[in-house]
Amino acid sequence: MSKLQFHTRQSVEQVEEGTDLAPKFGADGVLPCITTDAATGEVLMLGWMNAEAFRLTIETGEAHYFSRARGVLWHKGATSGLVQKLVEARIDDDQDALWLRVDVTGSGASCHVGYRSCFYRAVPHGAEAGAPLVYVEDHKTFDPVAVYGDAPNPTQL
Amino acid sequence: MSKLQFHTRQSVEQVEEGTDLAPKFGADGVLPCITTDAATGEVLMLGWMNAEAFRLTIETGEAHYFSRARGVLWHKGATSGLVQKLVEARIDDDQDALWLRVDVTGSGASCHVGYRSCFYRAVPHGAEAGAPLVYVEDHKTFDPVAVYGDAPNPTQL
Repeated sequence: MSKLQFHTRQSVEQVEEGTDLAPKFGADGVLPCITTDAATGEVLMLGWMNAEAFRLTIETGEAHYFSRARGVLWHKGATSGLVQKLVEARIDDDQDALWLRVDVTGSGASCHVGYRSCFYRAVPHGAEAGAPLVYVEDHKTFDPVAVYGDAPNPTQL
Repeated sequence: MSKLQFHTRQSVEQVEEGTDLAPKFGADGVLPCITTDAATGEVLMLGWMNAEAFRLTIETGEAHYFSRARGVLWHKGATSGLVQKLVEARIDDDQDALWLRVDVTGSGASCHVGYRSCFYRAVPHGAEAGAPLVYVEDHKTFDPVAVYGDAPNPTQL
């Protein structure tokens, strides 16, 4: 029996200015979720949620995502131990994107490559546009092979 | 003549561990972009970029998006004056999401409804799951009607 109710989207005013939770999932059944470190504000990752992942995240207080690459629900940290504990969840104006502020257990990392944030490289801009990517994290926080073994890499070309 | 070069995606190692910019746009030609206030870390919005919006953002240092609702390139602030000046751009591990850290000119707002952030409502979680959304911003920073007039609202049901 679920406590969380998704309201039917009835008007722009309801969606933008109301207090009904009425999320819009895309044609593929998912919406994007921004996850930041509640303490530092750093963006850790951009994930995707289907209705079930959304519901589980809100009800359990631990981030769940839907892996588009693997087509499965995914309790973040189930393998790595790097669980994301929800501090605050926010939804955007038209309710098709979510923002989670989290505390990460263990080493604090959230990236399968081993870095703290998935966004470990900067794209030079302005006068520097076109220069190679620049690393903003200088070391990995864990060894992905030790943690994930031979599980398939989620990155797809 | 463009300075920015998008490399062909050749291997997971190149994409995740290299310094080649090799973004992956989705089947619809866009990728998600998280935009945060460079000073406070607050998430202002989640937008979408096609290749042209990405290129213009990096080369001009002002955020450009692709409006999926209107099907057009969009220089943020062209109507409202609330231009987003790029402080830093970061790309994620598999290069299918971007994070912009920006300074917003004028009132500092980024939301078409009038709030500073598009994420002006919290979703109660855990023991409070199912409760109505909670406003975390208590006033609008501008009057959308005065700024946008009768331009169509981008929110779609």
